[in-house]
Amino acid sequence: MRAVVMQDSTLTVSDVPEPVPGPGEVLVDVLACGICGSDLHCAAHGPEFNKATVGAAGVELMDLSKPVVFGHEFVGRVVAHGPGTEGRVPVGARVVSMPILLREQNVMLGFAGPEAPGAYAERMVLSEPLLIEVPDHVETRVAALTEPLAVAYRSVNRAEIKDHTVPLVVGCGPIGLAVIAVLKMKGVGPIVAADFSPERRALAARLGADVVVDPAVQSPYEALLGAAATDDPARMATPTAILGQLPLRPTVAFECVGATGLLQQVIAGMPPGSRIVVAGIALGPDGIEPGHGILKELDIRFSLYYDPREFAETFAHLAAGDFDVEPLLTDTVGLDGVADAFAQLGTNPRHAKILVDPTR
Amino acid sequence: MRAVVMQDSTLTVSDVPEPVPGPGEVLVDVLACGICGSDLHCAAHGPEFNKATVGAAGVELMDLSKPVVFGHEFVGRVVAHGPGTEGRVPVGARVVSMPILLREQNVMLGFAGPEAPGAYAERMVLSEPLLIEVPDHVETRVAALTEPLAVAYRSVNRAEIKDHTVPLVVGCGPIGLAVIAVLKMKGVGPIVAADFSPERRALAARLGADVVVDPAVQSPYEALLGAAATDDPARMATPTAILGQLPLRPTVAFECVGATGLLQQVIAGMPPGSRIVVAGIALGPDGIEPGHGILKELDIRFSLYYDPREFAETFAHLAAGDFDVEPLLTDTVGLDGVADAFAQLGTNPRHAKILVDPTR
Repeated sequence: MRAVVMQDSTLTVSDVPEPVPGPGEVLVDVLACGICGSDLHCAAHGPEFNKATVGAAGVELMDLSKPVVFGHEFVGRVVAHGPGTEGRVPVGARVVSMPILLREQNVMLGFAGPEAPGAYAERMVLSEPLLIEVPDHVETRVAALTEPLAVAYRSVNRAEIKDHTVPLVVGCGPIGLAVIAVLKMKGVGPIVAADFSPERRALAARLGADVVVDPAVQSPYEALLGAAATDDPARMATPTAILGQLPLRPTVAFECVGATGLLQQVIAGMPPGSRIVVAGIALGPDGIEPGHGILKELDIRFSLYYDPREFAETFAHLAAGDFDVEPLLTDTVGLDGVADAFAQLGTNPRHAKILVDPTR
Repeated sequence: MRAVVMQDSTLTVSDVPEPVPGPGEVLVDVLACGICGSDLHCAAHGPEFNKATVGAAGVELMDLSKPVVFGHEFVGRVVAHGPGTEGRVPVGARVVSMPILLREQNVMLGFAGPEAPGAYAERMVLSEPLLIEVPDHVETRVAALTEPLAVAYRSVNRAEIKDHTVPLVVGCGPIGLAVIAVLKMKGVGPIVAADFSPERRALAARLGADVVVDPAVQSPYEALLGAAATDDPARMATPTAILGQLPLRPTVAFECVGATGLLQQVIAGMPPGSRIVVAGIALGPDGIEPGHGILKELDIRFSLYYDPREFAETFAHLAAGDFDVEPLLTDTVGLDGVADAFAQLGTNPRHAKILVDPTR
């Protein structure tokens, strides 16, 4: 079958062996797969990524001595059931799944080789217990947003948002836009969003951001203070221990950029008592001022992934039409277009999510 | 009256004007006051401290152009009531109080000048609404521990400790020891504690730390993994999204040192899904690896102070005898001994809390 393989930071369409479903696994035709920022990261900085996962979890994310088949935001159509399956989802049904193969050593789909390929391929194998069937009324391209929206859904869960909280979304790339979509769906607001790119600010506004800021013109933190100001004691944040009651609603920042130096900007900019959810992935060393963190009694909560329940809840919201997804879907390419799409995503800010359709 | 004044990093016993209670304030004789690490910090690094509070809160903590009278961990005896007071606590009663004067512009007691002196002085004024009367059965030297234990009490609150959590206390200076005392009082454990100093490790063990580690000999994080290991699913931490269920109880670290570079050691050492409460005050820039934080989905929660309820609850626990305080109280000096006590605290690890008794 055809697949996009990454080796030495280069993406090539190659012929690879058909994957074979093992016990409890099904074979699917890939119908669509979103291109994720972490795919771009891993293509450009694979060794650094591995170094970080070794530091954090003791294992390399990828075996870079071999080709890797990316793609973890997918929708498939069941083609065949492997041994020991229950046949719960029939052949012909469309499915989404968390990108994990439940083997003795779990496989992170989208970061392994062609023997357990990600979804930049014509076919892949999935673990039957993780399958969620996609009802007929849900478009494939919409279902393909489950994974990135689940990432945002967890980020918002990690914030444990209290009543009257005013969020600031720093960076309106794919993660920031998905966070805005989740905040809007949950009725949290007003939403303040900041990005240097006019195209991304326009997408943020279309998704429901109420105050959209160009950081080159206005401080996002000043905009947040304006949006969070209140003289209603019932809406004010819990008094901060050292500064007492501030005339502000509770505030939370979502750092959705992942650039070195940005975390300290957020620490310096946010009001005392704020929560900061870090969803952007910045590898390598970074500098912060812990003294600011402690004097403001900030919370910094890192968020990366989701659990099965969060994935399923996100899909349920998508299927119910709770998200405005149109602004997120900016293009679709075939396997031959993946390498160019990577280049586009790195340079052209009009893009949020580019889908890969291996059937093209 | 006599007071210890700090100017240009030098502590001197001086004669200063008697403080005068304003509206709603009482005058007290100071009976005892603990020497806090932040007093040492502020004496040695006043300008850096002010820079940090300006960065964090927009205000300088201290006016360093004038003498400062430290002392915010105090017990007093009511001498006189100022205008507009209710007389709720009679003359002669002993009191503790949060170290704040509730004026139009609140005063942080212990960081202002002789006109609103801290407790390194024969007398000070306090705000009547904040007074907590000390019952006869509670020793003055025990009541003097309310403030530092309230700092630790809040740190433990900030961790929002779940059932079966195993804590690691990094650094067994006064804050770390107080955190151990609070954890022990709350029945959280086994408690793992780490310090390079044998004297401090001995104090940690006396306070109830179950596993005491010399980081020069054994990694505190390996010790924690050993103490947190479990094969009982009912005791295991919530599965981490990306790594699944680890055979570990939930884990939390208390960073009670405040040295540059240490936060990243804790980030690197703690298992995925951990919480890190930062109670040590490190000023200036520090380096972390946000990539480790995000791949492990850590929480970093800074904790500095306490609110009135936490202060009152801490005092109630002290008065009820819930804390083992003897290991914390290592010496008492008069006003003339304060400068030497500062030097001792900076160099002699056998000390936890040195009290100042201005009546000596």
